[in-house]
Amino acid sequence: MNKPWIDKIRKIKPYVPGEQPDIGDIIKLNTNESPYPPSPMVKNIIDEYDADKLRLYPSFKCDELKTVLSEIHNVNKNNIFLGNGSDEVIALCFQTFFNSDKPLFFPDITYSFYDVWCDLYNIQYKRIKVDDSFKIVKEDYFGENGGIVIANPNAPTGRYMSLEEIEEIINRNLDVIVVIDEAYIDFGGESAVSLLDKYDNLAVVRTFSKSRALAGIRVGYVMCCEELAGYLEAVKNSFNSYTLNSLSQAIAVASVKDNCYFENCRNKIINTREKTILELSKLGFQTIPSMANFIFTTNPSIKASFIFEELKKVNIFVRYFDKPRIDEYLRITIGTDDEMEKLVSAIKKIIL
Amino acid sequence: MNKPWIDKIRKIKPYVPGEQPDIGDIIKLNTNESPYPPSPMVKNIIDEYDADKLRLYPSFKCDELKTVLSEIHNVNKNNIFLGNGSDEVIALCFQTFFNSDKPLFFPDITYSFYDVWCDLYNIQYKRIKVDDSFKIVKEDYFGENGGIVIANPNAPTGRYMSLEEIEEIINRNLDVIVVIDEAYIDFGGESAVSLLDKYDNLAVVRTFSKSRALAGIRVGYVMCCEELAGYLEAVKNSFNSYTLNSLSQAIAVASVKDNCYFENCRNKIINTREKTILELSKLGFQTIPSMANFIFTTNPSIKASFIFEELKKVNIFVRYFDKPRIDEYLRITIGTDDEMEKLVSAIKKIIL
Repeated sequence: MNKPWIDKIRKIKPYVPGEQPDIGDIIKLNTNESPYPPSPMVKNIIDEYDADKLRLYPSFKCDELKTVLSEIHNVNKNNIFLGNGSDEVIALCFQTFFNSDKPLFFPDITYSFYDVWCDLYNIQYKRIKVDDSFKIVKEDYFGENGGIVIANPNAPTGRYMSLEEIEEIINRNLDVIVVIDEAYIDFGGESAVSLLDKYDNLAVVRTFSKSRALAGIRVGYVMCCEELAGYLEAVKNSFNSYTLNSLSQAIAVASVKDNCYFENCRNKIINTREKTILELSKLGFQTIPSMANFIFTTNPSIKASFIFEELKKVNIFVRYFDKPRIDEYLRITIGTDDEMEKLVSAIKKIIL
Repeated sequence: MNKPWIDKIRKIKPYVPGEQPDIGDIIKLNTNESPYPPSPMVKNIIDEYDADKLRLYPSFKCDELKTVLSEIHNVNKNNIFLGNGSDEVIALCFQTFFNSDKPLFFPDITYSFYDVWCDLYNIQYKRIKVDDSFKIVKEDYFGENGGIVIANPNAPTGRYMSLEEIEEIINRNLDVIVVIDEAYIDFGGESAVSLLDKYDNLAVVRTFSKSRALAGIRVGYVMCCEELAGYLEAVKNSFNSYTLNSLSQAIAVASVKDNCYFENCRNKIINTREKTILELSKLGFQTIPSMANFIFTTNPSIKASFIFEELKKVNIFVRYFDKPRIDEYLRITIGTDDEMEKLVSAIKKIIL
């Protein structure tokens, strides 16, 4: 067929999101979702929600959600920028903050979306090697660059960088914006939010998808100085004024208000993580120290791709990346104690 | 304060969305929302929704929603591209389809977001004058261009272009993509969806915000040939894989299934529109023929800006654009019969 319009179309190599199997009775440890439901307050707010209000546009100021978030993070409402999942807010950070002719720096092993956004927005970038134990070496980020993005804890390794090291990177790069992607910070790490008073070149990204067990509502946010938040807001308003629907706003508010449930769930996940690492070590696995709700683990005697495929056969889904340096590792989301016991027994059967 | 990073930031003149007054007891006729609540099926689906499922990522295939939409529009599921409100899907259309060194064509009086997206994505554009009765003149779109976008019915005028004229524009521009933004088509117009079989350079945009009374859930979609849908999907997946949250998907499905309620509401709005035009004509108003859920009206004896401000004082919000060619008009959303009667009496008091 003749397509005279074809050369004017923007063609992008599609980014392929992680597998989302449809079958019912599976153990899903592949996309770092919470094994626990969201706070019971979420159920209440949905039950009470007045559906008739949905005829109106959402609040684009998101005032109530900003208020509760500003309280738990001890920042000002004007320091918060909200969006449709942390992927959207990070994409908007890239589009807004990284307009330099020098390359953006990020680790060679990290969240696989960073280079995708660079390609989308024509941002130069340089992948900086993590060391052989997957540590991010702070000194590698002291050279000239057009901005920095670091996931802390890093994905898919789970490795955490101390707040002192993060601060040194920010402090050595005052002429660019440093984005710290804290999707997994609630599972044991110390947040860089406390540095916002000192640094106006810092942007900290958070999500409701992991520790708040609300991947389904798509809410993420950035905390940064008021001026940077204003630039993000302007770019957002030139793209889509109403990115956050009404129900997701109400649900997010309910979740933030229930701090007790939140603490309880994340502590359970941390405990299960440590137990799982121990059990796997008895089977010869070596696991990278993790501060996330997943672990990155390898077994010198058996190919990771083999374990991955065998687990699938018994309906246990973990994540395997067929990429240089990490193709002998499995990334396993921390589920309930019961799910992790089933995982360990399944692995035992595969390798013994 | 010293800001060494300031020159690397992308600074955009913020687009200012329409006024969203917070006060309770107002008549809100300024953002083209439906005066009727969404289908009762929406309330049911929310009541029944299993909040625990929100811990999981939404379906990014949106299979169920695509299925019901494909049925009502008589297209294939692969012809549908979904997003977070029609603003998001149009933005992605601009980013994906308009990569030409020739200018994008759109009317000088139209949805005010089109030139904002052009600026955001560095797209050349040319505003084509509508005639003095605000008609889009089809012949003006036959010249060389990098793409075309037309809102039909047009905003803020409400003017509708016949399907024959739309087809002629598409047919004369087979080498570019023609986007028809049908946000208001359900209020009396004939959709260009029927032309999809014949033209692979056509993209038709729809929204749940107006005729489906669901502005609060942020769902919009594009219908186009499978290949164009694939390009949109690739760009979307390079920006944000999960743009549509789980609850909005479920609510949209429920709404589409209740066709009877939908027909009933839109017929009521059409009737109220015609009644209002008649009543206003008795007060000396001249109204552009409208096929939308709003009217665009002027009174030769009184300044539109004055009526606008006076209505605000009695808590009736309509829309006024202080822009060349249209600064003597008011755009008034069609509310309930009762709301429109109150509007007409309020105007009577202002002008008599």
